[in-house]
Amino acid sequence: AVDLLLEIARRRRVTLRLTHDEAAKHGIELAPFVEIVDDPGDDIDLCIVLGGDGTILTALRRYAGTGVPVFAVNYGEVGFLATIDPDGLAEDFERAFSGEYDTIELPTISVGRPDGTWSALNDISVHRKAGLRVADLAYALAGEEIGRVRCDGLVVATPQGSTGYNLANGGPVLAWGVEGFVVSFIAPHSLTARALVVAPGDELTINNASREEPVEVHVDGRPTLELQPGEDIHVAFGLMHGTLAQLPGASFYHRLRERFGRLAR
Amino acid sequence: AVDLLLEIARRRRVTLRLTHDEAAKHGIELAPFVEIVDDPGDDIDLCIVLGGDGTILTALRRYAGTGVPVFAVNYGEVGFLATIDPDGLAEDFERAFSGEYDTIELPTISVGRPDGTWSALNDISVHRKAGLRVADLAYALAGEEIGRVRCDGLVVATPQGSTGYNLANGGPVLAWGVEGFVVSFIAPHSLTARALVVAPGDELTINNASREEPVEVHVDGRPTLELQPGEDIHVAFGLMHGTLAQLPGASFYHRLRERFGRLAR
Amino acid sequence: AVDLLLEIARRRRVTLRLTHDEAAKHGIELAPFVEIVDDPGDDIDLCIVLGGDGTILTALRRYAGTGVPVFAVNYGEVGFLATIDPDGLAEDFERAFSGEYDTIELPTISVGRPDGTWSALNDISVHRKAGLRVADLAYALAGEEIGRVRCDGLVVATPQGSTGYNLANGGPVLAWGVEGFVVSFIAPHSLTARALVVAPGDELTINNASREEPVEVHVDGRPTLELQPGEDIHVAFGLMHGTLAQLPGASFYHRLRERFGRLAR
Amino acid sequence: AVDLLLEIARRRRVTLRLTHDEAAKHGIELAPFVEIVDDPGDDIDLCIVLGGDGTILTALRRYAGTGVPVFAVNYGEVGFLATIDPDGLAEDFERAFSGEYDTIELPTISVGRPDGTWSALNDISVHRKAGLRVADLAYALAGEEIGRVRCDGLVVATPQGSTGYNLANGGPVLAWGVEGFVVSFIAPHSLTARALVVAPGDELTINNASREEPVEVHVDGRPTLELQPGEDIHVAFGLMHGTLAQLPGASFYHRLRERFGRLAR
Repeated sequence: AVDLLLEIARRRRVTLRLTHDEAAKHGIELAPFVEIVDDPGDDIDLCIVLGGDGTILTALRRYAGTGVPVFAVNYGEVGFLATIDPDGLAEDFERAFSGEYDTIELPTISVGRPDGTWSALNDISVHRKAGLRVADLAYALAGEEIGRVRCDGLVVATPQGSTGYNLANGGPVLAWGVEGFVVSFIAPHSLTARALVVAPGDELTINNASREEPVEVHVDGRPTLELQPGEDIHVAFGLMHGTLAQLPGASFYHRLRERFGRLAR
Repeated sequence: AVDLLLEIARRRRVTLRLTHDEAAKHGIELAPFVEIVDDPGDDIDLCIVLGGDGTILTALRRYAGTGVPVFAVNYGEVGFLATIDPDGLAEDFERAFSGEYDTIELPTISVGRPDGTWSALNDISVHRKAGLRVADLAYALAGEEIGRVRCDGLVVATPQGSTGYNLANGGPVLAWGVEGFVVSFIAPHSLTARALVVAPGDELTINNASREEPVEVHVDGRPTLELQPGEDIHVAFGLMHGTLAQLPGASFYHRLRERFGRLAR
Repeated sequence: AVDLLLEIARRRRVTLRLTHDEAAKHGIELAPFVEIVDDPGDDIDLCIVLGGDGTILTALRRYAGTGVPVFAVNYGEVGFLATIDPDGLAEDFERAFSGEYDTIELPTISVGRPDGTWSALNDISVHRKAGLRVADLAYALAGEEIGRVRCDGLVVATPQGSTGYNLANGGPVLAWGVEGFVVSFIAPHSLTARALVVAPGDELTINNASREEPVEVHVDGRPTLELQPGEDIHVAFGLMHGTLAQLPGASFYHRLRERFGRLAR
Repeated sequence: AVDLLLEIARRRRVTLRLTHDEAAKHGIELAPFVEIVDDPGDDIDLCIVLGGDGTILTALRRYAGTGVPVFAVNYGEVGFLATIDPDGLAEDFERAFSGEYDTIELPTISVGRPDGTWSALNDISVHRKAGLRVADLAYALAGEEIGRVRCDGLVVATPQGSTGYNLANGGPVLAWGVEGFVVSFIAPHSLTARALVVAPGDELTINNASREEPVEVHVDGRPTLELQPGEDIHVAFGLMHGTLAQLPGASFYHRLRERFGRLAR
């Protein structure tokens, strides 16, 4: 796939910019229309990704807020966030270079506390620490305390993230385009905990209600923060969007039908 | 409660307009500041309802699109759609007549087929007919076929309706203000059916995929249409909104906390 | 398949006994080793069924308590209760006539009230009547009242029935051989209703707690009784078992893996 | 409560045997009818526990297989395994010393691999390790592979453990007396994973299907083993039972009704 990409780019006289890591990994050397750099920077027209959902997420986060579209080729298992599957790549790369794609804006959610803010494209989740007891989380929305749940954790997902961890918790699928994010619980020790879709302007406050034990906060699946006993974090829709390229005629509902076949085994 | 209402209205020199049925039911006769009519008409300032969720829904549908707010006193079990509970009525009616309330716009969903269109504030549901076999429903969104499910039925709910039948199907709670509606299945004979929150601009098409048996369509819980084998209906966000009065400081999340206590037994 | 069966029976000098209906349907006439009767009676060695789960259930109920095994060929969609799928029929019928099969005993559940008792192999369910309001059901186990739930209905399933309607309600799969039956609710308007696996000696009492509306009771999916407001029924393990033939090496867990593929679409 | 216990024991001339830890914790010194020991041993008539479910579980495991009943006073939140709640203690302790109690046998489940066997009264669970990726678990029953699921983990629960972690996963309640154990998944990344109640004689094999990452095995909630990539464990009903004292007239269904009220908030 990488060779094909290089060949099409060369023929079309389009410059490909690769990181040193990527170039080394694929044995690519400096050549006309190939640049090898530390960071591709923001002054690019299109970011082409070949990988699984994790790699695609990293690219979407990297270029969130820049307007640079991510054109993603699915080499992973599910590929909900991919532009294309890797069959018919020659034709699809031609389309990419001709600009024959639409773009869709994907919202981010942010988690903040006094020392910083982190953004996620898919989900922000809170987890009990391994070996420690069940987490004890209180949560409030728009300043109104809703409940307190002993659980393994809690997942806040965007529409594009709703088909991941959220779905594993029994949360609903949110179509792309729904204005809202969804909160679901991992193994709640409560009979009344239900998935809750939150209005886009509302802020979710999560409090570690345990008196003794910290919990972990993951951003798009990567352990990122630790929340001490009694401490709060705030989750809200972010200001920036990721931009995903998609082929004309693609739609979320088409995507849903295609990808669910792969989950249903 | 009705006596109190009459008394406060008389003192404040506000005219109450009652239907003949309502007047007869409560033994109210013509008097200054009391009018007894066939239909209260749209030229009123406020619609005051005393009843359960069903009665409140009827009022909200009746005044949808007119801008007349519904001020609802909960005499039912759950009362998700009520403005107030009936304690402190004197004070609350004074507020109603003084205009000391906010209003919130509640979206409708519409179901249409060539012979007409019906609107719901809470939900539109499809059900197998009693004594007949399981329903066989196919559904498509934005023109894309998503799936086909053998089930007892299917529920499409607005945010304000999401805490009713949809929740009984394992669907999520949608906060008021979420732009979207939710589709869930009643007893799906499928391992892969999941609740799906749909974007507000998308149209849902439901097809009765049975070759032999009709299914029923309920609008806000009332049997309204029959869908013949092979026939389609279309469900989408409606153009009109219902208007609910709420006391300052009330919010959906406050409402959620209060009412869920009543469901959790 | 019927022709093949007749041929193998004739060759092996085994008499097939068919009902008039079955014979007419397949155009079979009297011949050596073919008997055409009103009812095959209990003095037979094996009951061979070709059909879907409904037909197989009917045969299992008909011969429950007689010890006659049912050898079932699946011509339906899922076929959880089948002995074999219809590929390699010649070989499988030879096995049937040679007695090269194991048998597995399937428990029944019974529903009783003063005027009679009905037995089910798969499930007994209670349903609100079409067009009427939600059902209001109270239930007690071993004389202890457990709860009262407003719902579309309730399903009591045996292990072999657990993969049907019970599963559609979010109930668990019970492996064949588990001593117990499972109670699940259809669309419960309660946050705390959970599927409950009951011990085999315990009796379940279901009370129609509505003050006004009757509910329907289905036995293996067929409307059978009506339960008036205030009336009770009692459900318990039955005394009789159905007997299903299965090929050596078949097991419930093998069956589960095979059939779930068909549900997972 | 401890003082009351000492007093009643002294009056009835019954010897209480305490561990050094317990004695120190409550400031109890050697006295007639009080023995302070390293381990109470098996030659006792009754084990009296004051504590939460964790403490009660420890006692039940300690005396499993000895026939010594555990008389448990609930000082925890839920108390599903308690004999009594701590109101009316004087009367209840008198009953305990008079032998006015029934006993109920609670089954254990065992997890084994070549280096040993561990028993649980409530549940055995498998968990992904913190900070590592999702677990990838394959499972087989009675030698038949059922499926492979990417998930946070898996819980195997006895009937008395079914109201704990299993319930948090959407698993069913198993009444005490059901012959079987239940397998449920924590946050399964699969649309088809369902809770499965297993027959008592069947062995469950769990395989860590990850190529790289170990998973943790917890026995009654305590991290106990690590399962390496590719490694198997086997879970089956244990040979020993715990023995719980219960007051005459108590039943599982009574217990269920009482305790569920505490979960439903």
